Amino acid sequence: MAITATETDTPSARAFGPAAALSCRECGQRYDLAPSFACEFCFGPLEVAYEFGEVTREAIARGPNNIWRYADLLPVPGNVAELPNMNPGLTPLVRADRLAAELGMRSLHVKDDSANPTHSFKDRVVAMAVEAARTFGFRTLSCSSTGNLAGAVGAASARAGFRSCVFIPAGLEEGKIVMAAVYGGKVVAIDGTYDDVNRFCSELIGDPAGEDWGFVNVNLRPYYAEGSKTLAYEIAEQLGWRLPEQIIVPIASGSQLTKIDKGFRELIELGLVQDRPYKVFGAQAAGCSPVAAAYEQGHDVIQPVKPDTIAKSLAIGNPADGPYVLDVCRRTGGAVARVDDAAVVDSISLLARTEGVFAETAGGVTTGVLRKLLDEGTLDPRAETVVLNTGDGLKTLNAVEAGVTATIKPSLDVFKEAGLL
Amino acid sequence: MAITATETDTPSARAFGPAAALSCRECGQRYDLAPSFACEFCFGPLEVAYEFGEVTREAIARGPNNIWRYADLLPVPGNVAELPNMNPGLTPLVRADRLAAELGMRSLHVKDDSANPTHSFKDRVVAMAVEAARTFGFRTLSCSSTGNLAGAVGAASARAGFRSCVFIPAGLEEGKIVMAAVYGGKVVAIDGTYDDVNRFCSELIGDPAGEDWGFVNVNLRPYYAEGSKTLAYEIAEQLGWRLPEQIIVPIASGSQLTKIDKGFRELIELGLVQDRPYKVFGAQAAGCSPVAAAYEQGHDVIQPVKPDTIAKSLAIGNPADGPYVLDVCRRTGGAVARVDDAAVVDSISLLARTEGVFAETAGGVTTGVLRKLLDEGTLDPRAETVVLNTGDGLKTLNAVEAGVTATIKPSLDVFKEAGLL
Repeated sequence: MAITATETDTPSARAFGPAAALSCRECGQRYDLAPSFACEFCFGPLEVAYEFGEVTREAIARGPNNIWRYADLLPVPGNVAELPNMNPGLTPLVRADRLAAELGMRSLHVKDDSANPTHSFKDRVVAMAVEAARTFGFRTLSCSSTGNLAGAVGAASARAGFRSCVFIPAGLEEGKIVMAAVYGGKVVAIDGTYDDVNRFCSELIGDPAGEDWGFVNVNLRPYYAEGSKTLAYEIAEQLGWRLPEQIIVPIASGSQLTKIDKGFRELIELGLVQDRPYKVFGAQAAGCSPVAAAYEQGHDVIQPVKPDTIAKSLAIGNPADGPYVLDVCRRTGGAVARVDDAAVVDSISLLARTEGVFAETAGGVTTGVLRKLLDEGTLDPRAETVVLNTGDGLKTLNAVEAGVTATIKPSLDVFKEAGLL
Repeated sequence: MAITATETDTPSARAFGPAAALSCRECGQRYDLAPSFACEFCFGPLEVAYEFGEVTREAIARGPNNIWRYADLLPVPGNVAELPNMNPGLTPLVRADRLAAELGMRSLHVKDDSANPTHSFKDRVVAMAVEAARTFGFRTLSCSSTGNLAGAVGAASARAGFRSCVFIPAGLEEGKIVMAAVYGGKVVAIDGTYDDVNRFCSELIGDPAGEDWGFVNVNLRPYYAEGSKTLAYEIAEQLGWRLPEQIIVPIASGSQLTKIDKGFRELIELGLVQDRPYKVFGAQAAGCSPVAAAYEQGHDVIQPVKPDTIAKSLAIGNPADGPYVLDVCRRTGGAVARVDDAAVVDSISLLARTEGVFAETAGGVTTGVLRKLLDEGTLDPRAETVVLNTGDGLKTLNAVEAGVTATIKPSLDVFKEAGLL
């Protein structure tokens, strides 16, 4: 049922805070806030539309030290901080002076989302989905996942008292599998790629068997996706309420990049930051880079690919938000670029040895793209730049080759003779 | 040179903020603030003594969202927040309502230190050691480590621009080895136990070869150890400036437990919290439980043991601060208890499935001891209780048996037939 959002103060409206409606990204058609994700008219994706009240820096500063300080900008109830949730966010914005010096940059920060409860940015989006699932009365939380999301859903379900059943492609890193399973929910591996898993989930949602299931990244996707806006809010607040001039964001489905842009624009509209230009750069691994390919070729349409990269958390061959990523990067004067797996590994080491940040492969992708775009002259080394690390190196241990320098007997003589000083 | 601390405003005094001297825990002899750790007269351990200025809740609240909000209570310079450091702390105090319900408790919180930059509480203590090393002019940071500390030293050295060389017992978990090595420093495995590693390091410090080396947990230990006080400060602040009635702390060297007690007492003395009784409980794994054994037998002296437990981060057979742990637990009316490895594994799962917190084995030990002491009637289920998780489950993956529920073809029929709904 298509509606124009009203301002009546129904319980449902209060449950979603400032969110007023779902709105089709393609045709603009508006819908009630419901667990739906595609436009009935044009099949475009739905996203949350808001009617914001007054939001001040001071009120935000008084809020909790997590994403709920931005509750007035999110589709969540006003008392969200008191509900059982993983409460992610306010992760460090690391001033990366040593990495900047090595790259010849003036000002570089790393937004390190490995500090989230399950050590990836996915805790942000799942936190939103949990609140929507609670309001809609779902009992089971589910997702298709390249790994990080499965862990985030498992943990959040445990904390908030949902059953969970997550779907992953077979062959994921051990750390991600254990982290998905340890919280007691079901973890089902699907013989196939992430895109096969995604198709399977869409089938399950259409089936009566999936009736009381909230798929965080399918039927709860409009709410879920909004969680990525908090990255934009935090970066701006942590820079002293200023937008960075350049930001490098990894692309999996592409949703995160588009929502960071949405977050920046909201801050400008609400007068929380000065309206100054910012450029958004998208980063992909060469082994799964359909958006970078389209960007390079000047296309608007994304040609799906079969992923083959160590950056498994970005291995989405058919990225739903790819076209919107192209829009954002082109509109802001950014770009989309890709680096191969060797550069990913090398960049993980670079970030670790200069800044003490142990990134997941996705962080190697963004840091690699940072270097590449600097080399090409596409990035301005004098502009204030933020690079995202969205996951934790502990989850992709196999990607790095780091081990003991030597194993010796407990003797000072042996130590000296081994030339280890 | 033994001295009585003066109030002269030397650069050295400013570099250590409110710290006034080192003081022998046994005989009270005072020393200048230097990289020394044992009393020249009685060989007792040295610890930092302070002359605090006025410290208010409001000033703390205005500070950064990390341990430096408590800089006025720590041996660090006033501008510490601007120096390159990992800036750990202000980790979540998780309100564990579901776990409390399962255990029949009224109020339980989990202090989850896996949220620190390298995912263990060690970032807190290393942050202190880095500042002391900077002041003393050391160029290389080092440590003996059961794993977590090696990662924390590696990361902090990278961030702050020190060389690093860390020593670990051979046979550690893969995650801990990679996390120690990835930051580019040296990682030397010693054939032997942690206690062998420790002896080796003491030998190296006495040798000219180790002259410009800061061993965070040996010659920088007095400063390093103070970092654990921040756990006490954070717990009190996060409870609304109130001390918990019961706290369960893991015991490795025992330092952490004694410093949490020191932190609580400081808060009382400074008038930041009400002076009310609190009980400190120590937790060990049965396979390395010399302090629990001494407690049970009513001894004051610790009989060293050879560790044999999956809780490797607690596997210190000759804990330096064991006697002081006994003092604190006895003085506050607490206890020291131990659980076997099966209980550790079971407790990791319990914490994960009720609260979404994936703890390292050390967190399984504290949660296991929590259950045991409740069963025994030693813990009051009606008293406000905090249990510490000091590390991250991702680092001890082998301890838990969690894997995929099933692997299936991407077909709804197969899914239903497999009975997975």
